[in-house]
Order: sequence, then C-alpha cells, then structure tokens
Amino acid sequence: MLSPLEKANVLTEALPYIQSFYGKTIVIKYGGHAMINPELEELVLKDIVLMKLVGMNPVIVHGGGPLIDEWLKKLDIPAKFIDGLRVTDEATMEVVEMVLAGKINKGIVNLINKFGGKAIGLCGKDGRLIVAEKKQSKQDLGLVGDVVSINPGIIHTLTQEGYIPVIAPIGVGTQQETLNINADYVAGALGGALKAHKLVLLTDVEGIYLGKGPESLASRLTDSEIPKLIAQGVINGGMIPKVQSCLAALEKGVENVHIVDGRKAHSLLLEIFTQKGIGTMVVKG
Amino acid sequence: MLSPLEKANVLTEALPYIQSFYGKTIVIKYGGHAMINPELEELVLKDIVLMKLVGMNPVIVHGGGPLIDEWLKKLDIPAKFIDGLRVTDEATMEVVEMVLAGKINKGIVNLINKFGGKAIGLCGKDGRLIVAEKKQSKQDLGLVGDVVSINPGIIHTLTQEGYIPVIAPIGVGTQQETLNINADYVAGALGGALKAHKLVLLTDVEGIYLGKGPESLASRLTDSEIPKLIAQGVINGGMIPKVQSCLAALEKGVENVHIVDGRKAHSLLLEIFTQKGIGTMVVKG
Amino acid sequence: MLSPLEKANVLTEALPYIQSFYGKTIVIKYGGHAMINPELEELVLKDIVLMKLVGMNPVIVHGGGPLIDEWLKKLDIPAKFIDGLRVTDEATMEVVEMVLAGKINKGIVNLINKFGGKAIGLCGKDGRLIVAEKKQSKQDLGLVGDVVSINPGIIHTLTQEGYIPVIAPIGVGTQQETLNINADYVAGALGGALKAHKLVLLTDVEGIYLGKGPESLASRLTDSEIPKLIAQGVINGGMIPKVQSCLAALEKGVENVHIVDGRKAHSLLLEIFTQKGIGTMVVKG
Amino acid sequence: MLSPLEKANVLTEALPYIQSFYGKTIVIKYGGHAMINPELEELVLKDIVLMKLVGMNPVIVHGGGPLIDEWLKKLDIPAKFIDGLRVTDEATMEVVEMVLAGKINKGIVNLINKFGGKAIGLCGKDGRLIVAEKKQSKQDLGLVGDVVSINPGIIHTLTQEGYIPVIAPIGVGTQQETLNINADYVAGALGGALKAHKLVLLTDVEGIYLGKGPESLASRLTDSEIPKLIAQGVINGGMIPKVQSCLAALEKGVENVHIVDGRKAHSLLLEIFTQKGIGTMVVKG
Amino acid sequence: MLSPLEKANVLTEALPYIQSFYGKTIVIKYGGHAMINPELEELVLKDIVLMKLVGMNPVIVHGGGPLIDEWLKKLDIPAKFIDGLRVTDEATMEVVEMVLAGKINKGIVNLINKFGGKAIGLCGKDGRLIVAEKKQSKQDLGLVGDVVSINPGIIHTLTQEGYIPVIAPIGVGTQQETLNINADYVAGALGGALKAHKLVLLTDVEGIYLGKGPESLASRLTDSEIPKLIAQGVINGGMIPKVQSCLAALEKGVENVHIVDGRKAHSLLLEIFTQKGIGTMVVKG
Amino acid sequence: MLSPLEKANVLTEALPYIQSFYGKTIVIKYGGHAMINPELEELVLKDIVLMKLVGMNPVIVHGGGPLIDEWLKKLDIPAKFIDGLRVTDEATMEVVEMVLAGKINKGIVNLINKFGGKAIGLCGKDGRLIVAEKKQSKQDLGLVGDVVSINPGIIHTLTQEGYIPVIAPIGVGTQQETLNINADYVAGALGGALKAHKLVLLTDVEGIYLGKGPESLASRLTDSEIPKLIAQGVINGGMIPKVQSCLAALEKGVENVHIVDGRKAHSLLLEIFTQKGIGTMVVKG
Repeated sequence: MLSPLEKANVLTEALPYIQSFYGKTIVIKYGGHAMINPELEELVLKDIVLMKLVGMNPVIVHGGGPLIDEWLKKLDIPAKFIDGLRVTDEATMEVVEMVLAGKINKGIVNLINKFGGKAIGLCGKDGRLIVAEKKQSKQDLGLVGDVVSINPGIIHTLTQEGYIPVIAPIGVGTQQETLNINADYVAGALGGALKAHKLVLLTDVEGIYLGKGPESLASRLTDSEIPKLIAQGVINGGMIPKVQSCLAALEKGVENVHIVDGRKAHSLLLEIFTQKGIGTMVVKG
Repeated sequence: MLSPLEKANVLTEALPYIQSFYGKTIVIKYGGHAMINPELEELVLKDIVLMKLVGMNPVIVHGGGPLIDEWLKKLDIPAKFIDGLRVTDEATMEVVEMVLAGKINKGIVNLINKFGGKAIGLCGKDGRLIVAEKKQSKQDLGLVGDVVSINPGIIHTLTQEGYIPVIAPIGVGTQQETLNINADYVAGALGGALKAHKLVLLTDVEGIYLGKGPESLASRLTDSEIPKLIAQGVINGGMIPKVQSCLAALEKGVENVHIVDGRKAHSLLLEIFTQKGIGTMVVKG
Repeated sequence: MLSPLEKANVLTEALPYIQSFYGKTIVIKYGGHAMINPELEELVLKDIVLMKLVGMNPVIVHGGGPLIDEWLKKLDIPAKFIDGLRVTDEATMEVVEMVLAGKINKGIVNLINKFGGKAIGLCGKDGRLIVAEKKQSKQDLGLVGDVVSINPGIIHTLTQEGYIPVIAPIGVGTQQETLNINADYVAGALGGALKAHKLVLLTDVEGIYLGKGPESLASRLTDSEIPKLIAQGVINGGMIPKVQSCLAALEKGVENVHIVDGRKAHSLLLEIFTQKGIGTMVVKG
Repeated sequence: MLSPLEKANVLTEALPYIQSFYGKTIVIKYGGHAMINPELEELVLKDIVLMKLVGMNPVIVHGGGPLIDEWLKKLDIPAKFIDGLRVTDEATMEVVEMVLAGKINKGIVNLINKFGGKAIGLCGKDGRLIVAEKKQSKQDLGLVGDVVSINPGIIHTLTQEGYIPVIAPIGVGTQQETLNINADYVAGALGGALKAHKLVLLTDVEGIYLGKGPESLASRLTDSEIPKLIAQGVINGGMIPKVQSCLAALEKGVENVHIVDGRKAHSLLLEIFTQKGIGTMVVKG
Repeated sequence: MLSPLEKANVLTEALPYIQSFYGKTIVIKYGGHAMINPELEELVLKDIVLMKLVGMNPVIVHGGGPLIDEWLKKLDIPAKFIDGLRVTDEATMEVVEMVLAGKINKGIVNLINKFGGKAIGLCGKDGRLIVAEKKQSKQDLGLVGDVVSINPGIIHTLTQEGYIPVIAPIGVGTQQETLNINADYVAGALGGALKAHKLVLLTDVEGIYLGKGPESLASRLTDSEIPKLIAQGVINGGMIPKVQSCLAALEKGVENVHIVDGRKAHSLLLEIFTQKGIGTMVVKG
Repeated sequence: MLSPLEKANVLTEALPYIQSFYGKTIVIKYGGHAMINPELEELVLKDIVLMKLVGMNPVIVHGGGPLIDEWLKKLDIPAKFIDGLRVTDEATMEVVEMVLAGKINKGIVNLINKFGGKAIGLCGKDGRLIVAEKKQSKQDLGLVGDVVSINPGIIHTLTQEGYIPVIAPIGVGTQQETLNINADYVAGALGGALKAHKLVLLTDVEGIYLGKGPESLASRLTDSEIPKLIAQGVINGGMIPKVQSCLAALEKGVENVHIVDGRKAHSLLLEIFTQKGIGTMVVKG
C-alpha cells in the first residue's frame, strides 16, 4: 500500500512522458484476453481514459473473438476458417455485424463512459468510415474485405470534441455490401489515414520472438527486417496479419508501431510511460 | 411522365416551404411499414437526405419491429408482451440491442449514405445520449426503461458537421445497465431536448380518428384535448405511447408534432412541403 | 395539375443534381428577354433563389438593354454604336450608370428579396470590384472599358453571409473614371476571379448554331474550336462577345460555360437539374 | 507651413480622442454644401476614411439635393414640395432613385475608395435594409415614406470586414414599392438600429440658434427642451426634420447627436477631435 | 523503488481527481519554505506543470520573503515592519520591485519552463493587472497598497494559449505609483476576479490550529467561523492576512480556499489528488 | 499655437502614411537619451501608443544604460567593459537582470499604460522568448550571450490581443542560465523572427556619417556597402553592433532598417509619417 506522497512522486515522474505525447493520436487495436477478462478490460479502458485526459487522442479498433463463435453456435451456423480468416457467408456476416457493432462495440463504449470518458461507437458504415472491397484470395472467403480507403472526417470531428472513437472492423463496399475485415488491418489503415503517432496492437503474446522463449523477444525491429522473418518462418500464423498491418501503417506515415502483450496489467500505460516500453516496437529503418 | 419544365415548376413551388424550414431541427420516428417495405424505405430515406440538403436538420429515431421477433425466434427466446410493451429479460435484451444497434441502425445508415447523405448511427450508450431508468409498472417488465435525461451534445456536433444522426432506442441506466425503450418515447424526449421545430411520427395509420373511417381523421388537435380522448377510449392501444410522446415533446418545447401515415409514399415530404399536410398535427392549445 | 405525390417525386429526383452542385459558385449573366418579360423575370429570379437555398452560390451580372436607350431618348441623347459597342460620351455614361446601377440593379435586388432571397446590389465601384481601363479600338468608343482586374473580396463576404450579389457592369478606372463594360465580359472575368464552377449566359438564342435552324445547335464545343468558327463566320455579331467571355472564363479556371436560351421558362434550372442540359456548353478541350 | 515636428505634435495630441472613440459606430448624415462643393467633399470624405482607419465605424447616409432637381428639370418633370417634402409621383420616384442610388451614392463610394478607404454603396432595398411605409399626411405626398424598421445585418457584415457603408435614403415597402425618405430620418433610424455612439448631421447652418446671430448658438440641448423650442418657433423650417431625427435616434439608444456646420472645413474631425466640439449637441436629459 | 506496474496503478487511481478538476482555475499563493528550499521548489513547480498538463489552469502569485531583506541589507536600507507589514519608502519600494518582478518572478518562470511548462512572468503593472491604492492605516506604511480592482484580461489570454501566469504582487495606483501588496491579498483578489475553483495558500504551517499541537488542526472551517476565531485570538499574527484573503476570495466567488503546508513534499498534489486533502479548507457556510 | 482647423489638416495629411503601415510590425530598439530624458521618453512612448492605435504592431526592445551602472555602483560592484561589451560575472548578472526586467521594463510598461496603451513587459525567459548561448570571444566576457533562436509565439498572442510587448534583452541558455545580450542584437533577431516590416534603432547619433559633420549623413545605404565601411573604419565603436543587428535583421527578412536620432522629439513618427524620413535607412541591395 503506497502512501499519498509516494503516489504524488509517481505522478510527477510521468510528467515528461505526458508532455511528449501531448496532442498525439494513438490508434489501439484492442482484442484478445484484454477484451475477455473483465479485470484486464477495466484496466485497459481506464488507461485509455487517462490517456485522453492527459491530452492524447486515443482511437480504439476492437476485434470480436470468441463472442462471434458463441453466437454463431447459438444460431447453429458453422464457423469455418481458411488461413486464419473466417469464411463469411451472408448468414455469418449478419451475426458478425450484430455482435461486433451491436454488442461488443456498445459494451466498450459503455465501460469507457462509466470510467468518466466520452466514447462514441462506430462501424465502417458510419460516415462511410471504412470503404472496402472483397478480399482477393485463392479460395473464396465470402464477405471478407480489404480496406480500400478511409474517410477520417468523423474521427477528427469526434476527437476534437473530446470523444474517444470506438470502431468495429466492418467495412462497406461500393455496392453498400457489408464486409468483415481483420481488425489488425483496420487499425493499421486507420493509423495511416490519421497520421497517428503510434499504433499499438494489444495481443496475447509478449511480442515477436526471434527464437524460442521469452529471452528471444525482439524489442525493436525495422520494417525492412520483417519480410525476411516471414520468409524464414520466424514470424508466422496469426502474427502475420499483425505485422502486415504494422508495415502498412508505417508506410502510410505512422511513426512507430507496437506489438504489446494485452494479458499484462497496464500494458498500454507501461508502453507509453516507460523509457524501455514492453513488447516489440517496429519502426521505419 | 413529366416534362423537365413541369419538374422545374415543381421545384420552384417548393421554395416557400424550403425557406420556412431552413435550419430547423426535425425529429423523425421511423418505424412500421416504412421500415419494412424496401420501396417505402428508399422513399423515406431519400426524403430525409433531401431535407438535410435543403437546410433542415433531420434526426432519425428508429424502432425495431418484426426483425427483433424474427431473431428471438431463431434463438428460441419467447417474445412476451404486457400492455403492448415487450417484457425484456437479459437474454431478450441482448438480442434487442444487437438487432437494433447492430443491424437495423447500421442498415439505415448504409442506405442514407448510398443516397448521398452522411449518416452516423448511435444508440443511447454513445456519449450517454439517452440516460434511462427501469420503467415503473405493476407487473415487472424487466429491462424496459423510461428516459430520464438526454445528453444532446453529440447530436449538435454531428448536425453541425453535416451528418444525419440515426438513433437506436437503447437507454443506459445509472449502473450502466442496458434498457429497452419505446422508440416513440425516445423520439419525444429527443425532440424536447433538441428544442426541435417538429416531431414527426411515421406510423401505420393515417392519423388519429375521432370516429370511424377515414373521414373522421382529425387533422389538428391541441394537447389539452388528448387526455379526454384517451379517457373516452377514442385514442387507444398502440396509439397511446405515440400521443404520450407527442405531449411530452410539446411540453418540452417542440413546436408541433405530427402523426403521419408512413405507408404512403413521400409522406414526410408531403407533410412538410404542402400547405395542408397529411395525418394529424398536435399543437399546444 | 400535379398531385402532391407527383411533386414529391420530382423533388427527390432533383436530389443528385442538388448534391453535385452543393457549395459551387455559379455566375449568371442575366439579360435579354428574360430581363424584360415580367413572367420570365420572375421565373429566372425564383430559380436563382432556389439555387441559393439548396446550397449553391449564384452571382448575378446583369445587362441594361432597351431601358438605357429609352432613357437616352427621354433625354435627347443620341445612341450610337460601333461594332455592336455603344459609343459612350460623358453624357451617355451618366445615364448608363444611373439606369444600370440605380434602376435595373435595384429592381432585380427588390424582386429577389420579394421571393425570399437576400440580395445586395453592387457596381464595379463598390469595393473597387471591377477595375477597368479604356478599351483600345480603332475608332474611339469613349468611356467603354475592358476589365483589368477583379477584387472579389466583397463577393466572398456576401456569399458567405447568405446574400446573392447582383452586379451592374460598370468599371472604375485607375483615375476613378466611370467605364461602361459589356456585361458578358464582366461575367466572364468574374467567373474566372471566383473560380466559378459554371458560367451561364442567358441569351435570346438557343445556343450556338453550326448551320441553319435549330437542328444545327451545338450542344457541346471545346474552346479550341471557337476561333475557327469565328474565322469561318459561323459565330458572328452579338455572339462574339459572348463566346469571347466564355473563352476568358475557361482560361481563368471556370470549369464550364453555358450559352442558354433565356426566353424559355426555367432555362436555368433545366440547365442545372437535367442530365442533358439545354443550349450550348463550352469546355476546355 | 508646418514643420514635420509640429505635425507630429498634432498627431499625438489626437491620441486621447482616438482612444475614446475606438470601435464606436458614428452615423453621419452627409448633405448640403459639403456634398456639392468639391473641396469640402474631399475634406469630409478624407475625414471619414481617417475615422475608419483609426478604429471607428463610420456609416454614411447621404441626401440628394440640387442634383435631383437638375435631372427632373432635364426630363421636364416639375418639382413640387409640400411643407418642405418633395411630392413624389411615380415618374419623380424613378428619377430620385436613379440619381440617389445610381449617381450620388456611387460617386461617394468612388471618392472614398480613391482616398484609400473601402466603401460599399447601398440603398434601402439591398438586404431590405430600410423597410418603409407611405407617409401619412393631410395632403397626399405620393411615394414619400416613413421608416418602419431597419435590417442592420448587412451593415454589421460590412463594417466588420473593414468597409464603409454608404446609404441612399430609399426605402422599400411591404409590397416592394420604392419610397423616397428624408435622409435625416433615415440617419436617425439607422443610428438607433445600430446603437450608434454618435449621430452627426452635416448641415448648412452652424447649429441651433436660440436667438439671432451666431452668439445665440446653443452648444448643448437636452431632448426635453426641443418640443418647447419648436412650439415657440425657435426651431423651424428645414431644421424640424433634423431635430426630429435627433430625438428619434436618442430615444432608440444613440448616445448623442450633433448638428454640425458642413460648410466648415474638417467639421467632422473638429467635432470628434476637440474638447468643445462645434455646432449643437443634443443629449438625453 | 516502485515497479512500473505499481506506477501505472497510481496513475489510473488519479483518474477521478484529474476528471473532476478538468478546466478549473486554481490560484496558488507560492511562498515560504517552498520557495526557498530548492528541492521543495522543484517539487512544487513540477506539481504545477503537471496540473496544467492534465487540464487545470494554475495561476501563481508569489511572495518575496528573505530575498528582499537580503538585498535591502546589501544596499544598507533598513527593513522596518508595523503589524507584520513592511513600511515601504521609495528607496525600499525600488528594491522590492526589482527583487520581486526582476529576480524572483523570472526565476520561477525559468524553472517552470525547464520542467516543460510555458510560463510568463507579470507584475500588477502589466496590462494594469492589479490596480491598487495606498493602504489606509493608523501609522503611515508608505507605499503599501490594497487591491482596488483586477484587470484579468491578460490572464485569460495567457491561460487559453497554454501559458502558466506567474505574478509578482506589485500594484499600480491611479497616478501610476508603484505599490507593495501582501501576496496573500493579491492571490485572494485574483482568485475572486478569475472566479477560481480553488485558492491554495502554500504556507509554513500545517493549517489553522484550534488549540495546541497538530491534533488541533482544523481540516474544514466555514467563513462565518473565522471572525470569532480572530476575536478569540485563536487565529493571529501572520495567519490573519491569510484568512482575510481567504474570506475575500470566498466572497467574490472562489469555491473553496485551502491553507496548506508548503514545507511538505507534493503538498499541492496531495491537496488536489486525495480525498481528504491536507491542511485547512475554508468554505462558505 | 495651432488652430483646430490646422490640426485637422495635419491629421488628414497623415492618412496615406497610416494606410501604408496598417497591420505592419515595427520593432523598435529603445535606448539612449530617449530613455533617460523624461520629456523625450513621454514623446517616444506616446508615438508608440499612437502607432498601435492606428493599426501598426510596435514591439519594443529596450536597453539599460546608465541605470545599470548606477545600481552596480550602489552595490560596490565594479563595471568592466571589453570592446564596448560589459564583462558580466554572476554578481553583475543579478543586478543587470533586476534593473532591466524589474525596473526599466516595468517603468516603460507603466508609462505606456498611462498614455492609454496596453503594455506587457517580458524578458527572454518568459515563454523562452530569447534562447541564447555564451558569446564566443577571445577574452572571456562571462555571462554575455548571443541569440540562438527566438520563440515568437507569445509576441503574436500579445499583439493580436491589442497589447504592446516590451522586452528586456535577457536571454536564457540551454541550461537555464541567465545571459546578458546587447539590445541591438535582440532587436535585430526579433525583427527577423517576426518578419517585421521595419526595425528602428533609436540612438544618440543622427545616423551613419560617411565623412565629418552632419552634411555627410548617409540617408540610405545597402547592406552590401556596410562591410566595406566597417573595414575602412568609417563605421566604428558603438555603431558596429547597431549595423550588425541591421544586417542580421535584413538577412532574416525585415524589409528595411532605420538608424534614427532618438534625441530629437518625435523622431519615430517623423521617420514613419514623412516621405524623406530622418537618419539612415539600410536596405537589401
């Protein structure tokens, strides 16, 4: 138990970090355990409210995770994946959209407001925020989309007025069709469109391992090293969309991208308010 | 088939109506057949895009209707009503919220954008727009709410920036609980909070009948006449929440309220752009 | 006689046209029969009020026509023309200015205000809007001017505040002398200075004929075709200043220029609100 | 011939006067010899440009004087007066409007611009600035008007953007009819509507004499003294509309009103930049 | 030594306090040991920079203390006090002003800037911020002043632009004379003029004792209790100007006033970021 | 003694000068006799208040002169100079800062306010206005600085809000150390950073002499001529820092620089409000 004095010391130690992030946009991909575990959820969202309060502009993109499967199961719709991407027929898309935009999104909004923030929940249809097209792939994935362009106007309006935007990764096609997009990709594209200072991906791993075990964790990589690591199989599986959205974001002007362990308490604040950070940072190089 | 010249004549005839509504806020309760029938839906939403374009500030509150029942049925959750209000347990509330905020709301947004408008879909949790409490009633209705207060900040922000707000009638309680509210009541409360010029309820009737048959349609009533008509049973059933939200809106400063037949093509434009209007207008008196 | 429903259909059909012209500046040269015939005058000015109301920025430049001759005659001042340009001595200039800036200009302002617009009447002296110099020509034309430069500040101020500027084609020289300028030229120069989306010349012909009779009407010409057509004598007489002001406007950045028959009812709206337009459009090419 | 040093002394002596009038609105009725004599005209208009430059907001209302008679004569229209007011039939009204709004008004604008100011000339039709009605009188005066109301919006817009408004005393009736109004009355009404700090009437007398000869000049009168002086015949003739517009302006909130001799060089500056002023000041009392 | 995680916990615990003070003005009287001891000085000024960064508007009024005596001694000017107020002849006033406005004030500014804030140092002459008059007292105190009025314009300008104003308690009389004012009084008057949320007086005592020893510390008093406590001699000596400036500030609209021990590390943050606060709070009651 | 009429003539003669300087920034180095002699001081500061009032943006940089020596003497600190620059040890620096920022600066502010201006006094520490570094020289000059950079934000804020900034030439080093800088250099650097229209150095000479006696006064020099004149010894002594700050200012974008005799009454106004000016003007050439 800390004394008030010790607490005050901590606050003033945070001063240089707060100063250096003042007015900066931070796009946060929120997913994994940090979204499922209620204690972690509270910690992450309070961290975000604090970030807003001390002058940053956090923008949240959330995933869906197990809740989508849960509802598909309730409705007897089989979940099917190819290369880690959900094959999305019309029936599936309806459920995905309702769970993402109607349940998870509004739940996050509700908690942020509870902790004193002012959140607004959107999906890619609102203000045509995320314009998408059907993903090209060998096997037809159905209504799975790739981001074509971002209309960031509504995000600027909301952040200027003090709101925290919370975004469900649903895209809208040129024929108004609904498209399911990987949340990492959406976060990367949004970070690029907003010229964000930072893109932080909250994941269920500590970062990128170059070998085996925690001691092989890379704390800093350059974008030019990534393709080689993928080719070598060092980066693989679900980490691939994450590093790809990192690269896309860097290319469009995000200054640096972080892959951070969302299972750790306060991982967001630690990433921002400590010298060394945690997880893996990817930068232009 | 009209000639271009005849069309131009129509446009200039609309001039005085456009002038008199310039800059005025119009809250529209959108529900019933106008929401189910795709042709009517297109007509209504195009009317609203036109209203925005010629300088009005339309704000849409939508209901849910048969789609909620359809999904409850898919999920084997029995629908139960007391006095026309849906008894809403937690399982029902989850489905109601997902269908309203995740499906219907985003569908309306999508269509408005298709017709060239700029829509943003919200529910009462966003920016704590609709603060509610559990409805008091003899028989427990579960998570059915009454509006306690409206935080209209986000609506002003959106309308000023050229957006059309589309609102799902979900309220948030003081303990962050989700509450299901009658869309007519939400429209009335919102009209009051926005000091709207007009509240228009799109319904599946022609208006209020004082007797039997279309010829008994009241084209104008004062608020003081309503309680008597309810007591006499002239106004009854599903019309009661409608006239109550009319009265609430009038009391909080809405200038006039219209009960209009949404089954007729262009009923919104006809109400606004013709001298006589259609349906029943209720005013202070 | 149209039903209200048919009228509503017309209004929503105009939607895409209104959307595509939103916020655009349209300079209109107003003259000929459309200014003399009271029914046409009312139709044209109501069209302009409607254009303003649905979000365009119309700017009117008017001519003088027969009214100048009428007053010169009353005052026993002989009217004299060389190559279609009025030879303007001091006595003539006084009358021209009074009729244009004091009578016609204020009459147009008055009618626009009657139809619910907010008009302000200016001449080129106001805010030194139109700086001119004596026209160089073989035979001395007296106080006939060419536009040297436009000071558009006052026009921007007025349009932003919701006014419709109405401009008499009087220029001011570097020695403060009053100069009589062809209204077509003024409209072209103003369109260029305002980077107008469209310049519309309301004339007493259907457009440019390439041969004989209405069926030879060119609906679209490029600027590069014009000089040849003049050299061939296809374009001649009073049409020459019109096409020259078209070319000047196109060169300074106006996107397209229209020569339209002002003798037809609603020719302005038809030009803007129909796919095909009427008259002849001249574009860069 | 003054040395530069003496001139600099004069400039700094003006400092407290400039400071005390900073940002204040001064309505100036401009007429009489000061408008006819070119040397006086230049002095008055340079004074006004200087007033604008040092931070005041001058607004000019001008009369017409001999130029109207001159043009009526040219056109063989007899000038007729009842009680000092011009009987104005339609033919006369046309000439009055053209001379006031088309010739004198634009001439003043031109000179102000020449001296480095930015002037805009308006009449009461522009933006419906001066709404009027037919003057009630025993003998029909024709199209002579009284001010009903002022729409000062355009004046605020112009002064904020650095322009000097120059106003011809033409009113517009509810049926859009053109009405001829005494310039003193217009100046008084405008001063009231703008809550002007000062109304200055430039006249061809030194001020109000209480007896005979210059030594009986009243330098300060209260509004309550005026009716008695009229009743006694001390104030009479053309001075009556002047004092009546003084009273009207005072009643509507103008702080003080000055009747000043426009035949004297720099009478405006002397009134504003000297302790004692010149002419007669009328105040509430 | 705390772990990063413990630090992050502290930061999020501060959230509700930061939220409740967002946008509030806090006037801080800075003096005593907190100004002399370099470690305390750094802690106080970093606390203030943090307060600014998290959205409050701190305004600093500083005293002079021993440095004035030191410089008077160097210059062989005897320091003389009556009832705790410095008798201030012209020679003394010169030194007081130079030390306060030229040395202490700029030193505080310099340190705040070092810690990442943006400070501007002013005295009461700048923008005539503090208008004063000679203090009335039985024995002539020389150039000692009482605050007559505050011109807070420059403070609003600076806080809006992100600056922290630092104010030396020098007043300016109606004859431009320099007057020495007690810093507590200046802080109270400034708090009133700015309608501050809080006035905090950093002193060299723990607060107001009602009896003997720390356990008699009053943590909350109402303004109505103060006069009695002075009359009883419970409040006496140098505490009297402090409680008087508290009362003056409360009367002019400051919400609450705090007498806080500046000798304790982080006393400002502890006062603001803890439930209980430290020292004595005085409120209306 | 001038008549009011003659005075009014002078005012209107100033019109073109006032117009040509409207909105322009004029940096004034204020020092020498004009600061010591109370009559001259009053004239200079009134001239500056007038300049502000008629729309210019004067910014004052003042020197210290004999008052610093006077206080050093009172404190028995010996004044020592190398090449006309004060050798500044810590004890000297303390006195220099107090006299410049605490006494002279606030005295100028006080007088400007007395004459109706709104002045704010700053030194280079305020908002880190003047960032400096220790001057490199053969013999150690102690805490004498050279300007490294200017942070002009606070100057823009103050001039926009109607204030006249008054600046003491104290710089702040990267380690927060206090540095004494030649006021001419500060004025030059500030003129450059503000892209001033004019830099005026008020000196105790008539300007730059090319030979002997007043008739050799150069009224106009180009920057390219200066180095040669220094090499030839024509420009020497205290004039060297002056011409060097002229060159620095010209290089950074000041349009022209004036060396003016501050011993003459109204030299500032005469420089600005006369065709020929007085003193020596240096321009790019």
